[in-house]
Amino acid sequence: MKALEQKILSEGQVLPGNVLKVGSFLNQQMDSDFIMEIGREIARLYADEGVTKVLTVESSGIALAVAAGIALHVPSVFAKKHKSANMSKEVYTASVYSFTHGMEYEIAVAKEYISERDRVLIVDDFLANGNALRGLMSIVSQSGASLAGCAVAIEKGFQGAGDAMRAEGIRIDSLAIIDSMTDEGVTFRA
Amino acid sequence: MKALEQKILSEGQVLPGNVLKVGSFLNQQMDSDFIMEIGREIARLYADEGVTKVLTVESSGIALAVAAGIALHVPSVFAKKHKSANMSKEVYTASVYSFTHGMEYEIAVAKEYISERDRVLIVDDFLANGNALRGLMSIVSQSGASLAGCAVAIEKGFQGAGDAMRAEGIRIDSLAIIDSMTDEGVTFRA
Repeated sequence: MKALEQKILSEGQVLPGNVLKVGSFLNQQMDSDFIMEIGREIARLYADEGVTKVLTVESSGIALAVAAGIALHVPSVFAKKHKSANMSKEVYTASVYSFTHGMEYEIAVAKEYISERDRVLIVDDFLANGNALRGLMSIVSQSGASLAGCAVAIEKGFQGAGDAMRAEGIRIDSLAIIDSMTDEGVTFRA
Repeated sequence: MKALEQKILSEGQVLPGNVLKVGSFLNQQMDSDFIMEIGREIARLYADEGVTKVLTVESSGIALAVAAGIALHVPSVFAKKHKSANMSKEVYTASVYSFTHGMEYEIAVAKEYISERDRVLIVDDFLANGNALRGLMSIVSQSGASLAGCAVAIEKGFQGAGDAMRAEGIRIDSLAIIDSMTDEGVTFRA
């Protein structure tokens, strides 16, 4: 998605530790029209897949999942990172190791929101080590639902997790794949 | 907003501790078309207010803020509840006491995302004790931006915080105001 690559080049910032900061349009601040454009692009890619539900993990995935859900006219669901007082005890859970925060956390989705009748599209903002996606795929698998695929905005291609998943036969659609990222700039996979 | 009242009556669940669970359409699971309908209603209410930015707090406010931002064609920003590795140290912060979780937490917004040139619309899913809104208003005040008002989906009117804010001259728009909430049912302010 050329528009996303251009946005990364014009507004993204490369920070130490392989962090790409896109907080001005995709994370803490969300460029609404652009988020909706990404949602429509994801909907276009999965138009023929019979998706019944979009699944993401809080917080930075929610905007894209909502936009994709709006474009596909299906509900979106987010996995919580903390057990909440008003969440059913009947939950699917998975452990996710975050390299960004250097810690393992648990994600959870109430069982009532995904069933074996669902066809799930996983959406997230980043694919780096793939741990969040694997946690979400574990939840889809536990529910008995089928997985349509994973759509992410930005894949850190140089970390290899996306290609490893593709080699396993998992459908991964990344709207921008970064091949290298240094202080001098960002280059995308052709 | 009649459609929201009907949705609360048909899908909401009253849980112990004055908790209204609306996880099937407004929180953990989000009814995309309905979320967008709420976003358009909020945009209609604030169409003449010159809003430049929508502000909310993670996680359950994000979907509505994104939808309102899409409908208003302005960016949305969410306050984070935890300091994050890739968030600038230059942040506005406020302390918020959560009765739901029985603890105080800090919310933070990077200074680069709100400035004194902004006119901010605060959006959230619930208004109960008003602590989250007051924290967000503190951040708006620190930034020097002007406050257009606060739009929330569901106000627990019987807790009084919304009316206290209105009495202070703050514009509060709640799409559904609950007057009472028991095991037997929910009644709305006429």
